[in-house]
Amino acid sequence: MIATQYEGGRTFSVVERAAAAPGRGKVRIKVAYCGVCGTDVHIYHGMMDQRVKIPLTIGHEMSGTVDAVGEGVRGFSPGDKVVVRPLDDRGQKPSDKGISHICEDLKFIGIDSPGAMQQYWNVPAFTLHKLPPEVDLRLAALTEPLAVACHDVRLSGLKQGEVAVVLGAGPIGMLVALVARKQGAEVIISELNPARIALARELGFTTVDPSSTSLVDFVREHTQNFMADVVFEVSGVQPAVEVMTQVAGLRGRIVMVAIHGQPRMVNLFQFFWKELQLIGARVYEKVDYEAAIALLTAGELPLQALITGVEPLRNIQTVFEQIDQNPSGMKVLLDCQ
Amino acid sequence: MIATQYEGGRTFSVVERAAAAPGRGKVRIKVAYCGVCGTDVHIYHGMMDQRVKIPLTIGHEMSGTVDAVGEGVRGFSPGDKVVVRPLDDRGQKPSDKGISHICEDLKFIGIDSPGAMQQYWNVPAFTLHKLPPEVDLRLAALTEPLAVACHDVRLSGLKQGEVAVVLGAGPIGMLVALVARKQGAEVIISELNPARIALARELGFTTVDPSSTSLVDFVREHTQNFMADVVFEVSGVQPAVEVMTQVAGLRGRIVMVAIHGQPRMVNLFQFFWKELQLIGARVYEKVDYEAAIALLTAGELPLQALITGVEPLRNIQTVFEQIDQNPSGMKVLLDCQ
Repeated sequence: MIATQYEGGRTFSVVERAAAAPGRGKVRIKVAYCGVCGTDVHIYHGMMDQRVKIPLTIGHEMSGTVDAVGEGVRGFSPGDKVVVRPLDDRGQKPSDKGISHICEDLKFIGIDSPGAMQQYWNVPAFTLHKLPPEVDLRLAALTEPLAVACHDVRLSGLKQGEVAVVLGAGPIGMLVALVARKQGAEVIISELNPARIALARELGFTTVDPSSTSLVDFVREHTQNFMADVVFEVSGVQPAVEVMTQVAGLRGRIVMVAIHGQPRMVNLFQFFWKELQLIGARVYEKVDYEAAIALLTAGELPLQALITGVEPLRNIQTVFEQIDQNPSGMKVLLDCQ
Repeated sequence: MIATQYEGGRTFSVVERAAAAPGRGKVRIKVAYCGVCGTDVHIYHGMMDQRVKIPLTIGHEMSGTVDAVGEGVRGFSPGDKVVVRPLDDRGQKPSDKGISHICEDLKFIGIDSPGAMQQYWNVPAFTLHKLPPEVDLRLAALTEPLAVACHDVRLSGLKQGEVAVVLGAGPIGMLVALVARKQGAEVIISELNPARIALARELGFTTVDPSSTSLVDFVREHTQNFMADVVFEVSGVQPAVEVMTQVAGLRGRIVMVAIHGQPRMVNLFQFFWKELQLIGARVYEKVDYEAAIALLTAGELPLQALITGVEPLRNIQTVFEQIDQNPSGMKVLLDCQ
């Protein structure tokens, strides 16, 4: 089998090795596709070298089929189509209060332990979700980011007919927009990148370029002064933090999806004045994976449009180099077959 | 009757005039006591001269008895003990979505129209809440700030047995602490002022001076790493904004009670990482007034301890001057009888 490894210094190696037998409670997966996440690019940039044990096979947005099951594993058989929910929460403590998906000692599979950018991958059986046999494994590789979007929308408490503003239409922002629309919201997207604006519009979204149009004025007019019921901050930049409190209406909910690496200037007065809520949202829970798989299976989301390209696993080095040079790109999949 | 008027330039006048008859839908109240709110001090400092129509009788934390009722008023008779919920929400629009207590065109009685720092006060009947006859009208003058605290605690979703940290133990912070404890929370107060620390401790609260003790370490030890379930930010200062995300545990709720006059540096990463929530809370709703009156009537909160002094209405000028010079003080009442 072929496995890729992050070696530090913006370098991946491609190595040949034998597929290991799955240990007790584990399953060996024949990986079909593995998407490249922003976090993977972050790792490639060396930003997480303190956390990542080099050399490491990374990758966590995958689809595949069960290849072999270890002792004590029930409910999975070779040939089953599966995705992995890459959260190892076995380090849970009482002070985590049962909030397992973000427990203090959470290990993220593909960052803290080997990931899916290889042909065969052994994971604990408790991380698996079975897919219906008819599911397209290319689209299924989007399950993980789609589950992020399902989590974000679920925590927002979005109700049918509400207005949702999505700040930033990268892969996660676009998936959030798709899920929010599917749940009956009227979605307005704010995005600077022309290619992403074009894609958002192709997908039927009302889309504003805040460098040329005032998003606040636009939302005010568009909603007859009701403003947004829900705002998803998916951009990670200061201007979005400024606008998020302005576009939210009375008791609006702002979901913090983006990772802000530094403290930001926040208009706390607006939180007080309009009784806004800020809701942090990180990864997903089991129920979000189930929701994502149901959406995927229903086949009603235009997920294919989010796949920028599919490249052979052994091209991983050029794939990461190209992603770096293409801020317009959405989701690139590595074909691990 | 005597009425006081804010004249601008840190000056109050005391004027003699006839009590007006209550118009249709209005009630004339014989004011008993009127507390001095931080907002009143703000007005005195000239900070709200753009909003306040000088000369104006201010004051909104009051108690009194019905003196006369205007045409069309039902349910109130002379002699009834009452408090006023000083929110005139008659300007509600559809875009307020029924969230009347913070509607865009809300008029705050005592700021946007004449207030209670006078002997007789005419207000719309819909602002009145009746008090049981046995209630002490001095304590009843705390109904308004107590309703703020009830609102804050209600919006926090506080459950019995949870740990609540209150940042800042001025009158509102102390009332929040009392209400939270009454609802079964374990309360930790953070306060810098020695006199307020002493009062908080007299009232039985675990109290930390963050200038000499690390609040974060204290809460960590005190809770065996669970950290706070709920944090009430009642101080309005940047250091509290920094600490609020640190003392909150997984999915902790932070209630923004304070008025931050300028944008603050907020660690949004912590909101993401721990799935924190920030909940803006402003004034109160009808149900909060009812809760406050029930607490007051039950007589189980040590509200008397929060009353720093009771001064004759005609001494208003010296009262405000003294409040300015006494950062340790809590609630001063004007005796309007």
